[in-house]
Amino acid sequence: MSLRQSEVIAPCPSDPASQRAVAAARRVVETLVRHTFSSGSELASAAATLEQLADRLELSSPTAQAVVDGLERRERYSRHDPVSGAHNPFAPPVEVVGRSDGSVAGSVRFGLPHQGPPGLVHGGVLAMVLDHVLALANSWAGTIGMTGGLELRYLRPTPLFADLQVTARQERLEGRKILTSGEITLDGEPCVTASGLFVAFPAPTPAPTGR
Amino acid sequence: MSLRQSEVIAPCPSDPASQRAVAAARRVVETLVRHTFSSGSELASAAATLEQLADRLELSSPTAQAVVDGLERRERYSRHDPVSGAHNPFAPPVEVVGRSDGSVAGSVRFGLPHQGPPGLVHGGVLAMVLDHVLALANSWAGTIGMTGGLELRYLRPTPLFADLQVTARQERLEGRKILTSGEITLDGEPCVTASGLFVAFPAPTPAPTGR
Repeated sequence: MSLRQSEVIAPCPSDPASQRAVAAARRVVETLVRHTFSSGSELASAAATLEQLADRLELSSPTAQAVVDGLERRERYSRHDPVSGAHNPFAPPVEVVGRSDGSVAGSVRFGLPHQGPPGLVHGGVLAMVLDHVLALANSWAGTIGMTGGLELRYLRPTPLFADLQVTARQERLEGRKILTSGEITLDGEPCVTASGLFVAFPAPTPAPTGR
Repeated sequence: MSLRQSEVIAPCPSDPASQRAVAAARRVVETLVRHTFSSGSELASAAATLEQLADRLELSSPTAQAVVDGLERRERYSRHDPVSGAHNPFAPPVEVVGRSDGSVAGSVRFGLPHQGPPGLVHGGVLAMVLDHVLALANSWAGTIGMTGGLELRYLRPTPLFADLQVTARQERLEGRKILTSGEITLDGEPCVTASGLFVAFPAPTPAPTGR
């Protein structure tokens, strides 16, 4: 594994219009959740606006299947993934950089759409993020694979609206097995830890992907 | 544990306007992902529409912190959760029913926002869903708690655009430890299995929540 300077693995979209649209969609999702909690009066009007927009976008977009079919010729980890994907409004997003010591690090702040118990991040959302950041650590280390197993330990409640750190590192390779670990911390204290077993794709990977 | 007929644990919103707005927001997220893949020409216009809507909703919504503060007097598992939450556009959603044999079962179909490798569901999204459905199984069984540990085994790739089944069951209680298992299947064949260790909340739970 080559040692490089810190490098953004999941960058912001280079297209300003896409960046604006994705950021605004995240705001709409967040405010809609707040609004439905209070049975807000704007919901019928918001529904009409969103339906019209979805109709318009559907007319001018490729089908989902066409997008998937086109992906075979592209990088495996794209900017559209559900965790760090700058082009995907579903992604919180987690912004991740590769570090020169071989590990990756990111930061994330969760909001109301990611809530489990009151005021706390949903445990499943934390699992989703860790799975992905472990995969990014594999990508950064140069050998990627499919998740075979994932073990999570929840050490303490993880609050919403807090600046959380996520780190991960590929520990070792055993044949096609890739062993990778990571954690989510708040102020340096671990909230959740993860150990992953990944199965390397048959062909060697030439370089970290996702860029 | 009482045996009941199948019962919807995470129902659709009773408010038609909310239901429409949430469904339309999911469509916008999905079409935006398709659109950014093709560098669509509608993105600047979509961004303006979404920014205006977010501005309007923010003016008429409680703050996120006010929502959280108000939750202490409400049920723990609400309709706003990130997996089955009918009021949360972030939720795929997974629709879950409690069954008379004590287990819970749901169905879900994932789209482009949930993609990992091309054409496949992201492993982290599957982890998120299983964590939540295990928690719903605990709720249905009458004893809920915080996730302490979660182990996932990925047995085969899970395709997008397929009708997947999710089932879970509380296996047993050991003091305050709750042991729960579940799986995601396609056509009866398991794709991912999960074992969870939950720590029961100190006070006994009177009844299944989330309704």
